[in-house]
Amino acid sequence: MASSYQVAFSPIYKAVTVPAGTTLLEAAGKAGITIDSVCGGDGICGRCKMIVVDGAVGGRPTTLLSREEIRRGVVLACQTTVEGDLRVEIPAETRAKDKVIIDADARRFRAVHPGVQKRHFDRSAIAEKVLLHLDKPSLANNLDDCRRVRDRLEKLTGTDSIQAGLKVIRKIPEALRAGDFTVTVTLGHRRAVAEIMDVQPGDTAGRNAMAVIDVGTSTIVAHLVDVGTTETLAAEACFNSQSTYGREVTARMIAAEKRGPEALQRLLVEDINRLLSALVARCEVNLGDITAVVCAGNTAMMHFLLGLPTRNIRRSPYVAASLEPPPLRAAEVGIKINPRGLLLAIPGIGGWVGGDLTAGILATGLYEMDGLGMLIDIGTNGEIILGNKEWMMACSASAGPALEGAGVACGMMAQQGAIEKVFLDGDEIRHEVIGGGKPDGLCGSGIIDLLAVLLDVGAIDRAGRLQGGRDPRVRTDGGKRFVLVDREETLTGREISLRQEDIDNVVTAKAAIFAAARILLDRLDLGISDIDRLMIAGGFGSYVNLDNAVAIGLLPDLPAERITYVGNTSIWGTKLAAFSGEARELLRQIIQGTTYYDLMGAEDYVEQFRQAMFLPHTNIEWFPSARRRSGAERKA
Amino acid sequence: MASSYQVAFSPIYKAVTVPAGTTLLEAAGKAGITIDSVCGGDGICGRCKMIVVDGAVGGRPTTLLSREEIRRGVVLACQTTVEGDLRVEIPAETRAKDKVIIDADARRFRAVHPGVQKRHFDRSAIAEKVLLHLDKPSLANNLDDCRRVRDRLEKLTGTDSIQAGLKVIRKIPEALRAGDFTVTVTLGHRRAVAEIMDVQPGDTAGRNAMAVIDVGTSTIVAHLVDVGTTETLAAEACFNSQSTYGREVTARMIAAEKRGPEALQRLLVEDINRLLSALVARCEVNLGDITAVVCAGNTAMMHFLLGLPTRNIRRSPYVAASLEPPPLRAAEVGIKINPRGLLLAIPGIGGWVGGDLTAGILATGLYEMDGLGMLIDIGTNGEIILGNKEWMMACSASAGPALEGAGVACGMMAQQGAIEKVFLDGDEIRHEVIGGGKPDGLCGSGIIDLLAVLLDVGAIDRAGRLQGGRDPRVRTDGGKRFVLVDREETLTGREISLRQEDIDNVVTAKAAIFAAARILLDRLDLGISDIDRLMIAGGFGSYVNLDNAVAIGLLPDLPAERITYVGNTSIWGTKLAAFSGEARELLRQIIQGTTYYDLMGAEDYVEQFRQAMFLPHTNIEWFPSARRRSGAERKA
Repeated sequence: MASSYQVAFSPIYKAVTVPAGTTLLEAAGKAGITIDSVCGGDGICGRCKMIVVDGAVGGRPTTLLSREEIRRGVVLACQTTVEGDLRVEIPAETRAKDKVIIDADARRFRAVHPGVQKRHFDRSAIAEKVLLHLDKPSLANNLDDCRRVRDRLEKLTGTDSIQAGLKVIRKIPEALRAGDFTVTVTLGHRRAVAEIMDVQPGDTAGRNAMAVIDVGTSTIVAHLVDVGTTETLAAEACFNSQSTYGREVTARMIAAEKRGPEALQRLLVEDINRLLSALVARCEVNLGDITAVVCAGNTAMMHFLLGLPTRNIRRSPYVAASLEPPPLRAAEVGIKINPRGLLLAIPGIGGWVGGDLTAGILATGLYEMDGLGMLIDIGTNGEIILGNKEWMMACSASAGPALEGAGVACGMMAQQGAIEKVFLDGDEIRHEVIGGGKPDGLCGSGIIDLLAVLLDVGAIDRAGRLQGGRDPRVRTDGGKRFVLVDREETLTGREISLRQEDIDNVVTAKAAIFAAARILLDRLDLGISDIDRLMIAGGFGSYVNLDNAVAIGLLPDLPAERITYVGNTSIWGTKLAAFSGEARELLRQIIQGTTYYDLMGAEDYVEQFRQAMFLPHTNIEWFPSARRRSGAERKA
Repeated sequence: MASSYQVAFSPIYKAVTVPAGTTLLEAAGKAGITIDSVCGGDGICGRCKMIVVDGAVGGRPTTLLSREEIRRGVVLACQTTVEGDLRVEIPAETRAKDKVIIDADARRFRAVHPGVQKRHFDRSAIAEKVLLHLDKPSLANNLDDCRRVRDRLEKLTGTDSIQAGLKVIRKIPEALRAGDFTVTVTLGHRRAVAEIMDVQPGDTAGRNAMAVIDVGTSTIVAHLVDVGTTETLAAEACFNSQSTYGREVTARMIAAEKRGPEALQRLLVEDINRLLSALVARCEVNLGDITAVVCAGNTAMMHFLLGLPTRNIRRSPYVAASLEPPPLRAAEVGIKINPRGLLLAIPGIGGWVGGDLTAGILATGLYEMDGLGMLIDIGTNGEIILGNKEWMMACSASAGPALEGAGVACGMMAQQGAIEKVFLDGDEIRHEVIGGGKPDGLCGSGIIDLLAVLLDVGAIDRAGRLQGGRDPRVRTDGGKRFVLVDREETLTGREISLRQEDIDNVVTAKAAIFAAARILLDRLDLGISDIDRLMIAGGFGSYVNLDNAVAIGLLPDLPAERITYVGNTSIWGTKLAAFSGEARELLRQIIQGTTYYDLMGAEDYVEQFRQAMFLPHTNIEWFPSARRRSGAERKA
């Protein structure tokens, strides 16, 4: 029986109860505290320093702390586990400041709770380096150079399907002699076929890195990993520059049809190249040492990346050009790594359920669960997978960008100046701003919080209609709206408010996702309570207050212990695939074993959607906790 | 029991005895008559017209003859078989004239005697076109476009290793819709793996051609074949422009080391592109319809073609960069066919025994012979394969270019103006000039003839020394030499003569080849008489007078029925490989089953070579026919 302990953070008092063994970084995440960690919890960046004031902790030694710091009780939150009730102080410099997006996105990666995907995978990176000590040629042994290399590789790998391109064949003779017949071969794996990507003189086996990239519609997160040690060397993130063509995927597809896919591709590739340059600049790695880029993203993003036409994805019957593109040469799309380096896109399930979800299924272990699991990846599209080790069903709901802070007048992305939390302090509605200081707008998590609070205080009714006359912050001059921050208190001098239309957009978004989850359950004659584990993934999932998300009916109402934040499962699953042939084979089985359910074909979707347009839902009996909360609020 | 018949050609009287079923073209070849055939005996060019004056012939109907011609007894020699004793008239226009090299080289191809390689191979061209009628996508069947194509191909081919590159993947969606889901897929075969090279809308399966090319050191011969019908559509040949860097392979390797392999590659690729342009210009074929180029040549030529370094081929321990390069994209080396078209080089056996010999082994069926076979491919290097269905051993002797007419003062290639035949007419030494008219020099076959005649008339002794005083044509003014044609009778006004140094070069060349053959036999405790079938291949082999070749000791002395001209077995074997996966697999087995014997390691080679420096040989008992001939001459 695992014990749980309370961790109390200061100076801003936040307390959470977590199981023994949870890292302080995860505990802080659960408490909703944004930490200035760059490496995603791999103990590399040294930015997640905290001071353990009182209580028992475990952890690994680190070279990133000075003697003086250790004497003061400073620890790296990502390397320190909770082993008793704790009081922890978070130094000002540790809390996220200006590089919020990058850090927060990188942080998402490690935010996976214990208990999810513990399977051990074989290690066979998509691009391996193999050191060969070859016999020198003699009159008695004058095999041609390529055969000398191939024969040895065939013995080592047990396959006789070893390919080599002309450029490598041309290079082999000189490489063999420059290395005195000791060479390092970079071997790329494409299922049963291995490809000699490069032959370098001498032993360069230690210099092999991969980039693992989550290509999100709004944010791109890249991790640089060492193939030899499997360590994450560094992490970087940036906005997806394609936003110029629209925040929604559909708008970008339309742009790609007008301008050709190259325009969209170029922006993405430039973003990736910038991230890669930043990554190698921070590590002892050259771009030429990066032998593979492994990417996951929704189907449209992968099409943009590869320059594939997207026009048929957005038109019935929603046909992708390719859901399972083979490993390609990264240079073919303009990604600047080793000129022979590979680009692998994680295979997708359908036009609207991409490789990010396949990776999520792999990372969460949903495909091997005994009980019923549901994975909800919340973004501009909400993707939902329901299933267990026997079967899986996926669907995608077009939620619109309101939950990401777009499509809302005062909405903004989760960056410096965004209100990321809204909560009741007695009668007062308080908020927290990313990076501190005056607020600039509301990001997705703040919007959800605010909606839940407005429901709590009765400023909106269950249909999401603003109730004038009861709350002075509900104003009607110049459009009905709830004013959260007056203009004097904001960064720009414009008030931060939620208009009726904004509320409608959010309600529409959450209704779309909930209705989709509901339809999947209905199709299989299952109820919400049948879900043994509900996993919330996506950048969104790391910030959002779960209680509030249930309160407004975005998430099904389940006991807290059945709901798990799983963070950026896309990048974690992609990392598994980058390192393991077994994982890559599993991805193929996952896409073959997952049924894509197209909501366009569901006649009852509109009705389910309509019912979900209430807060939390027309069928309030599905939300017992919301009923209790509502009762509690009324009492208070 | 096959009957044999005599065929007597006029107006130049030549008679040969051939088995029933031999074509007139082959009979003319055996009689040493050069025919103006371009298509290599495929019944396409209509240039090999002859008139059957008397006797029974068989044959296929042709549209290339007019009613009037048929009434006059005109036939196409390549389509007409000998079925009785014949008198045949060869019209003036049929005898080779100005386009000699091209025509003669093309003609070589079909000059393969019956009885050699009759095996039937499976048909699976290296690049096949497959017509697919696919289901149109619907909501119930919205597989991605690539999967739709792949699923069908997997069913058709029985393999799940179907690859596709990015360019093709990009093209598939539009091709499918432009063809209303009827498309033609070009499928390239690389052993177990198939590659989707192209997807074209509609049915283009009928438009698929391959180029089959024999890349010789001196001459390049290209055939254009229709993949659907397996017919040869056209043939072209040209000199290898690399001659600028030397007639011998070694000189070109040295040039490649100085200038980089690109310089040599460029010349070869330009030659090939010119040949391809000429081929398509003569047929209803576009360059884009050519989906594969299949080449054979010696190892150095294949290295030049692929731009591989050759420096280690010519230095002990004689290591090639690659003897078995995988199928590549032809565009990678600059060959202008379909941009996705393949380039396959026939695998070689060793640094000095290339794919042309592997193809020769395949074409002649040496690898499946019950009795002992020997294949001698005569060129600048003489390559010799000895063996049967149990084992094969290969070696290569550096003969120098004397037998090809180079390295001889009055030597020239077998082109217009070259003396190709020298013979005794009573006491008079007569000659024949290619294309008629005044002679310009001596080509290889003329040199061998002349040497044999000089031996017959006693103008040289058995050591090859010119005997002054006995023959007035042996002159000593300005260098000891035998004057064949005085300056007044030549095209250039320079006498055509054979100097002592020239004779020495020829004797050296023939000694190198014979000694190599002898060494191979010795290594296996075999004698000349153990050879059940001696096959002479190469451009050279089609012209040379066999009796004279034996008389000077170039070829082992065997009964005439055991010696076979097999012509350009390189191009024939290459054609088999182009059309058949079974043949391609056999090539792999052939190179694995053939032992390369390096003469550099043979301590007795020098002694064998020394002994072979006599005409025909120090051991005259090995040349019983030469002894008889010598006796006959003395009597005469």
